Amino acid sequence: MSVERIGVGLLGYAFMGKAHANAYRTLAYMTWPPPLVPELVAVAGRTEDKVAEAARRYGFARHTTDWRSLVDDPAIGLFDNGGPNDQHAAPTIAAAQAGKHVICEKPLGRDADESHDLWQRVAATGVKHLCAFNYRFVPAVRLAREMIAAGDLGEVFHFRARYLQEWITDPAFPMVWRLQKATAGSGALGDLGAHIIDLGRYVMGTEVGSVSGLLRTFIDEREGGSVDVDDAFEAAVGFANGAVGTLEASRFCPGRKNALTFEVNGSRGSLSFDLERLNELQVHLLDSAPGPLAQGFRTVLVTEAEHPFWEHWWPAGHTIGWEHTFVHELHHLLTAIRDDGDVRPHGADFEDGYRVAEVCDAIARSSETGERVEVVYRN
Amino acid sequence: MSVERIGVGLLGYAFMGKAHANAYRTLAYMTWPPPLVPELVAVAGRTEDKVAEAARRYGFARHTTDWRSLVDDPAIGLFDNGGPNDQHAAPTIAAAQAGKHVICEKPLGRDADESHDLWQRVAATGVKHLCAFNYRFVPAVRLAREMIAAGDLGEVFHFRARYLQEWITDPAFPMVWRLQKATAGSGALGDLGAHIIDLGRYVMGTEVGSVSGLLRTFIDEREGGSVDVDDAFEAAVGFANGAVGTLEASRFCPGRKNALTFEVNGSRGSLSFDLERLNELQVHLLDSAPGPLAQGFRTVLVTEAEHPFWEHWWPAGHTIGWEHTFVHELHHLLTAIRDDGDVRPHGADFEDGYRVAEVCDAIARSSETGERVEVVYRN
Amino acid sequence: MSVERIGVGLLGYAFMGKAHANAYRTLAYMTWPPPLVPELVAVAGRTEDKVAEAARRYGFARHTTDWRSLVDDPAIGLFDNGGPNDQHAAPTIAAAQAGKHVICEKPLGRDADESHDLWQRVAATGVKHLCAFNYRFVPAVRLAREMIAAGDLGEVFHFRARYLQEWITDPAFPMVWRLQKATAGSGALGDLGAHIIDLGRYVMGTEVGSVSGLLRTFIDEREGGSVDVDDAFEAAVGFANGAVGTLEASRFCPGRKNALTFEVNGSRGSLSFDLERLNELQVHLLDSAPGPLAQGFRTVLVTEAEHPFWEHWWPAGHTIGWEHTFVHELHHLLTAIRDDGDVRPHGADFEDGYRVAEVCDAIARSSETGERVEVVYRN
Amino acid sequence: MSVERIGVGLLGYAFMGKAHANAYRTLAYMTWPPPLVPELVAVAGRTEDKVAEAARRYGFARHTTDWRSLVDDPAIGLFDNGGPNDQHAAPTIAAAQAGKHVICEKPLGRDADESHDLWQRVAATGVKHLCAFNYRFVPAVRLAREMIAAGDLGEVFHFRARYLQEWITDPAFPMVWRLQKATAGSGALGDLGAHIIDLGRYVMGTEVGSVSGLLRTFIDEREGGSVDVDDAFEAAVGFANGAVGTLEASRFCPGRKNALTFEVNGSRGSLSFDLERLNELQVHLLDSAPGPLAQGFRTVLVTEAEHPFWEHWWPAGHTIGWEHTFVHELHHLLTAIRDDGDVRPHGADFEDGYRVAEVCDAIARSSETGERVEVVYRN
Repeated sequence: MSVERIGVGLLGYAFMGKAHANAYRTLAYMTWPPPLVPELVAVAGRTEDKVAEAARRYGFARHTTDWRSLVDDPAIGLFDNGGPNDQHAAPTIAAAQAGKHVICEKPLGRDADESHDLWQRVAATGVKHLCAFNYRFVPAVRLAREMIAAGDLGEVFHFRARYLQEWITDPAFPMVWRLQKATAGSGALGDLGAHIIDLGRYVMGTEVGSVSGLLRTFIDEREGGSVDVDDAFEAAVGFANGAVGTLEASRFCPGRKNALTFEVNGSRGSLSFDLERLNELQVHLLDSAPGPLAQGFRTVLVTEAEHPFWEHWWPAGHTIGWEHTFVHELHHLLTAIRDDGDVRPHGADFEDGYRVAEVCDAIARSSETGERVEVVYRN
Repeated sequence: MSVERIGVGLLGYAFMGKAHANAYRTLAYMTWPPPLVPELVAVAGRTEDKVAEAARRYGFARHTTDWRSLVDDPAIGLFDNGGPNDQHAAPTIAAAQAGKHVICEKPLGRDADESHDLWQRVAATGVKHLCAFNYRFVPAVRLAREMIAAGDLGEVFHFRARYLQEWITDPAFPMVWRLQKATAGSGALGDLGAHIIDLGRYVMGTEVGSVSGLLRTFIDEREGGSVDVDDAFEAAVGFANGAVGTLEASRFCPGRKNALTFEVNGSRGSLSFDLERLNELQVHLLDSAPGPLAQGFRTVLVTEAEHPFWEHWWPAGHTIGWEHTFVHELHHLLTAIRDDGDVRPHGADFEDGYRVAEVCDAIARSSETGERVEVVYRN
Repeated sequence: MSVERIGVGLLGYAFMGKAHANAYRTLAYMTWPPPLVPELVAVAGRTEDKVAEAARRYGFARHTTDWRSLVDDPAIGLFDNGGPNDQHAAPTIAAAQAGKHVICEKPLGRDADESHDLWQRVAATGVKHLCAFNYRFVPAVRLAREMIAAGDLGEVFHFRARYLQEWITDPAFPMVWRLQKATAGSGALGDLGAHIIDLGRYVMGTEVGSVSGLLRTFIDEREGGSVDVDDAFEAAVGFANGAVGTLEASRFCPGRKNALTFEVNGSRGSLSFDLERLNELQVHLLDSAPGPLAQGFRTVLVTEAEHPFWEHWWPAGHTIGWEHTFVHELHHLLTAIRDDGDVRPHGADFEDGYRVAEVCDAIARSSETGERVEVVYRN
Repeated sequence: MSVERIGVGLLGYAFMGKAHANAYRTLAYMTWPPPLVPELVAVAGRTEDKVAEAARRYGFARHTTDWRSLVDDPAIGLFDNGGPNDQHAAPTIAAAQAGKHVICEKPLGRDADESHDLWQRVAATGVKHLCAFNYRFVPAVRLAREMIAAGDLGEVFHFRARYLQEWITDPAFPMVWRLQKATAGSGALGDLGAHIIDLGRYVMGTEVGSVSGLLRTFIDEREGGSVDVDDAFEAAVGFANGAVGTLEASRFCPGRKNALTFEVNGSRGSLSFDLERLNELQVHLLDSAPGPLAQGFRTVLVTEAEHPFWEHWWPAGHTIGWEHTFVHELHHLLTAIRDDGDVRPHGADFEDGYRVAEVCDAIARSSETGERVEVVYRN
């Protein structure tokens, strides 16, 4: 076995940087043999001492405080952007134009325009591009999509999802970049809402058609500045496949740590998912044995040898965690790079990133105008 | 002890008639001493042999196929309307005008106009009137309201609710009165949505302010006629107290038998409820002992001696069922009649019934126009 | 329709008396037409004013402080013994010898000897006899038995059960009759353990073969006297059908209100039950559709029209409570009386009551000697 | 920062070898700075090509088919034994006698005698020794121990645990080493039972006092040989601190993938755990706010910054998996080696491994003789 190597340049070493670095290191031996062996060439970040320590910690050969140094490095074949939202566009475009494959954290841009531009410019270069909607790579989510695609649920009537967190309920929580429009683009909408919009599209294989939305900011002033993004949003949604449902996200839900839940109802069954129990999928099938006496939602522990991604892991019942979604995601991307294959449909590419941004913008516009918005997607 | 008696005349002997008849019989000894002893004077229904059997079964002294015979009967002090929606207005108004206290099943009328008229005419007579939103009388729901009213949840940010059933998912399910606008007024909206709209108002003690809605009919033609009501609705909602959330109901959710769930998030905690586990309330409180290490949603089994309504029942852990909500509701009404007291705030009166209908109409109007509707309530 | 009547004489008006009285009243119209119409002839109890009020409350035609007055009353065809354990034998035997059918609360006697004597003397009279193991009449429990009897679980390997409560954890909880051997016979063993021993026998259709047990009293002295019964017991058990498992019960489990749970594992599937969610049965079947990808325990809401006992109640999803087990149980007994049919296998008769007592005694004996006890049943 | 290195020699590359190798690689950057940097010096296994591939996969500098080569290698400071049970004693003793610290998978030996000998010989060398009871290193389990140690549960009355799997329910499942006494020592008892015996000791900080046990083999003959170990065991147990409970394990429980559950009840509260939801701990505390109205078991998501081990991982709600227990365990061991500190109380050392084996033997002996066995521990 002789696996080729690919040099990785990572922008950002905080939450997302840690998750991606861990995934590169893990996939190299857990997905065996790996599609390509990731070589950690360089990590970029703003603060010299911190980025230096990150390089030592995660094993990058060098570090830099200037992301352009990654773009210029011929040893780097994959540029991984885990920086804040306002650092997504320029570095990613530059890297692609330098011929590097790119992965960028979600939301792709701060709004649909920026996202569209990012997509168009990167697509024009011909490199592989992946927008890091990592929850597509939860085994239970992949299983949900596969069951729906196989027709197990019949005609789909409903998709409802919510993504609830609690971390800024306290008025004493200070200003951070995620609460500022200039850096983040939006609040719960782009951060949490983008995930569930993407999951609706992914598990059903369809697009959002129209939205009626409502944004709300509960606390306008925090220590360190004014909040100019949404704390929560609510939406009634129609999908292109005829399904209808609700979408909502909030950072003001005490007790909900990372509560991304969704449910799909179809003519032959239903399924539901909860990220806080990510090894499980609830499945109800109308026509399952042994007849009407023992019907009900099953708690499927998605850890069997036959389950998605499970060839990499452990015997049944030996669960995985949140971080493993990144292992699956980067394994998927490296495979596409190796094979010159498609990132889609299981990976979200930059067009997906753009389309989700278009839906987010539509929800925000609907909130302002009070009108239902038919989502129009640009090419 | 000498408890006064009150004669009861019941319209309808099917699902709701059975539930109400059972409640009258049960409260007479389980809520001891009862506020008033209900005497089952007469039951009315359309089909002679069936209503005759219902009278024998539930112990009504007589039966009739003409509801006017109840209105004319001086032995009847309480008129109970458990008939289909198009039989709510005329009999209930006539009974009130004949001086009888009235209880009417939900939805009060088939739309806001009919509901408003019903309320106004009945209120003018001075009798007690109760709209049978029985889920207010689930012990866990009452506890939720009491905790919110006591400030246990602090400032309330969110109310989200859904009411999901599965019973018409099968295209072979035939036409019934609940699927026709002329008799039912609306579909899932008035039947299921009315319950969760009322619960949002009740548990938070506020009103719905604005709605953006979406109605959908998945199957237009059934054996026996055309469906001209909604199979499902979705809505993004703002409340007068500043809370926002989603509301939805559907009869197309396989595996969801009677899945009324709601969740409230506030600055100091959260709670959630599921009608399929009606003896439980999930409660999360930010400041509960013993500090940050052991926080989380508690599964409160609402069966303690101190819990609402529990003085009537059993030792802790010996659960009650769906039917008991009617026992509590009628006990509440009889108490108000005996004491000439208020039906509100724990009981929904006809003004509540009307206000819910106004919200339902607003959701339907928003679905048609695509515009957010500010709900305007008439006096 | 002309249903015959049967006169009921009830001994005891407290917890069990209330549950039985409610059941007689309810079954008369909810199980329609009832097998026999129960006529509440008389209630007996020790305290004149309380038994008088109970008669008024539940509608007994008369009351008495002497149970012999029930035995002597020719209007009484069914003697219902809901008194404390030391009042089970003499009144029940006397009633049977007077030709009355009998139902007696569990445990049948205070030990195996008393229970055997009770059974033998009553059986000799030829009347119907039922020992009130009411949890056999939970719909989910009946369904469990029917599935096992139908072979849905294949060969059965395990039965494990526990019955946990919390009510005497507080050392300040005073002495009551249930904590005294003279009146109660035993503690958690006979009160709670008897239920799960009976359920193991019932759902598997087998007998307990051998037991290794351990009894424990955590608090010996309470206000009002010394505790001379067990607070908890633990046992490893072998059944006649080859299954093995554990049984345990305790009144020292904070947070466990009425936590009777059991699980059965067989070669083709498993099922589990929790009394605090009595409308549900967890079912796992190895060979259920759609293959290995979506296997898992199903939460079956046992409220469908096809489910046991459900012909008496409500549409699917409209749950029942603890008290309904008594309605089913007494309906079953009245049917057996009307038809001169068998109480068994779905009802526990006095032989069942005796056999359970024999197992309880064996557990206590094993606790004393430290030796495994093969349970020997007398005829 | 300059962290010292420690050379690791691993025996076994299958299930446990993979889990340990992953943990060494992960802790090097996730627990930052690591106590010692593990250097993967060599891996040993029986099959040349497989062990060679394992070395490439996990990054060991060399491989060998002779474990003595590890013992002889001066570059190895820590010998990690992940081989089958009959390969625990000799290599581990040899390594310790060569001055290497040792970690050995559980069960320590195949019986108490072998385990005692292993402990004694290794202890005599003065190296650090850890028996890999990895479930002690689940954050929720550590939290359980800390709460009990802090007195949050008061006096402890009960510990009950079960460990259920399903993997040999199928009679067609062939003979493997785990089903043979010569290699495995025992069946479910030593493999699964050892874990829950150790957890009872660990979370309560006490020892098992006496046991009454029952072993059972459901299928004696399999393709490839005769099964001479237990398929399941059941036990009633008394602990030295006065608590009583049941212990059981089985590999014949369809639907139970890796269902290690335990519950502790004390005078002030209860807690329970389920390995299939290892990020959660159920906690009930009698005296928690806000008084009696909202008491109940809390689902604590053990992912807060303040929770055990969580300094290494992610923001709250971003769960970890089964494999992370090994990261925590090896981090603990490396810290003890670096600091010349105690492996106990949070780590199980070889004395713990021996004591658990003594309990296992007692259960087996009790099963044979039918007598309760007081467990006697040797020094």
